[in-house]
Amino acid sequence: MVRLFAMPPENSPDSNLISSPPRTRRKIRVAEKSALLTRAKLIDAALETILAVGYYRASSNEIARRAEVSWGAVQHHFGSRERLMYAAFEAACTEVTAVLKAARVTGDTVEERLLSVQDVVFGFFGKASYVGILQVMWNLTSDPDTSDELHGSLRAIVAQIYDEYVRLMLQVSPDASTEFAWFSYMASWGLAVAAASGKVLRYADDLEESNLLQRRLLSKALSALLSESTRTAPAGAALIESSKS
Amino acid sequence: MVRLFAMPPENSPDSNLISSPPRTRRKIRVAEKSALLTRAKLIDAALETILAVGYYRASSNEIARRAEVSWGAVQHHFGSRERLMYAAFEAACTEVTAVLKAARVTGDTVEERLLSVQDVVFGFFGKASYVGILQVMWNLTSDPDTSDELHGSLRAIVAQIYDEYVRLMLQVSPDASTEFAWFSYMASWGLAVAAASGKVLRYADDLEESNLLQRRLLSKALSALLSESTRTAPAGAALIESSKS
Repeated sequence: MVRLFAMPPENSPDSNLISSPPRTRRKIRVAEKSALLTRAKLIDAALETILAVGYYRASSNEIARRAEVSWGAVQHHFGSRERLMYAAFEAACTEVTAVLKAARVTGDTVEERLLSVQDVVFGFFGKASYVGILQVMWNLTSDPDTSDELHGSLRAIVAQIYDEYVRLMLQVSPDASTEFAWFSYMASWGLAVAAASGKVLRYADDLEESNLLQRRLLSKALSALLSESTRTAPAGAALIESSKS
Repeated sequence: MVRLFAMPPENSPDSNLISSPPRTRRKIRVAEKSALLTRAKLIDAALETILAVGYYRASSNEIARRAEVSWGAVQHHFGSRERLMYAAFEAACTEVTAVLKAARVTGDTVEERLLSVQDVVFGFFGKASYVGILQVMWNLTSDPDTSDELHGSLRAIVAQIYDEYVRLMLQVSPDASTEFAWFSYMASWGLAVAAASGKVLRYADDLEESNLLQRRLLSKALSALLSESTRTAPAGAALIESSKS
């Protein structure tokens, strides 16, 4: 069984460095820098390879070849193809969490604010590379060799993205219920994945334009749904601005 | 290069059979039946294997093992793993096209009719096995060995499903524009894929209940969007029944 997330050894390289002579220290730092660069190259190449040749053909060898690193680099730096894939998934999720954290909800109406949130969400889930991320997620979940620890980490990362989304949704409207936020997230996610899939399948040339129209229609539909569900308490609508503080 | 969709030889087995003695004919028929059964087993096993161990580990050998057929059966009956995967994709699409063709749109209001269509769409795109079908589609599209002919067939099958959806949408409301039908399809597809993905990731125990609520909310949102877009021509709403004939 592949053990993902093995803990680092208790004597970390940093604590050992303290007693090393300066020359050795510099050498080790250079080696560490080079290792980080190789890891980053492999993480980038993993998603690129999936998109270029499909998930099935994205073997460790093929990824290393495209990353222009040595044949054994995946094994050396990650331990296994699965662990490299997880690292690529984690890097992408960390990025989107940061983007959502930094996002500003703009617009005078609920519909405009919904669109501003969707634009952010779409910027991640609507990219062709998300089709690769989805496959990593599904494959790691189904893989019998995936450890319980990894299953837990996968869920935690996904939950973190959703928490950031909810924070934005409360800026769209303080009337947004948990039910509405969840539905809105699923619908926006789904529409973005449809767009990402359309990019991979290269169905149309005017995808960007079509995707923007789709986001506008969803914002309109969600706004209508929200105003219908809060029609009994219209006073709440006036509180939208105050929730931003 | 793998040639998918090679044409059958001009002298088909059936035409040869006419001059065969009765005994040989029966033998060949038994052999044909057995071949069909093996093909069907492999097609079923392909999606099951993807769900059980992930797309990457769903090799020809693993699929044959789970189908309980001989090691070389994939090569013998399909020529390649890719062609088996395409056959599984085609079988699933043929099934959903038939289901959509046979579907009846029911309900007194646009919202109810939208829900009845979504229930049908969801019955296919919302199944965990659709996550496998999606991966087949994405992988065959990205695979450099996929022939142009296959790319064309993939698109044609997907277009057929959408044509059936549009037919149902016109039964929901004759006011449904091309734009609305496309948006409604993408949104329903996306929500169903979100549900299918949730099943694979096993995020919650009460998925069925949650998914029904999501479909209800989408029907409500789409209905609000449609009535808003046709508000300028309310007379059209009365024509809903007449379009069904």
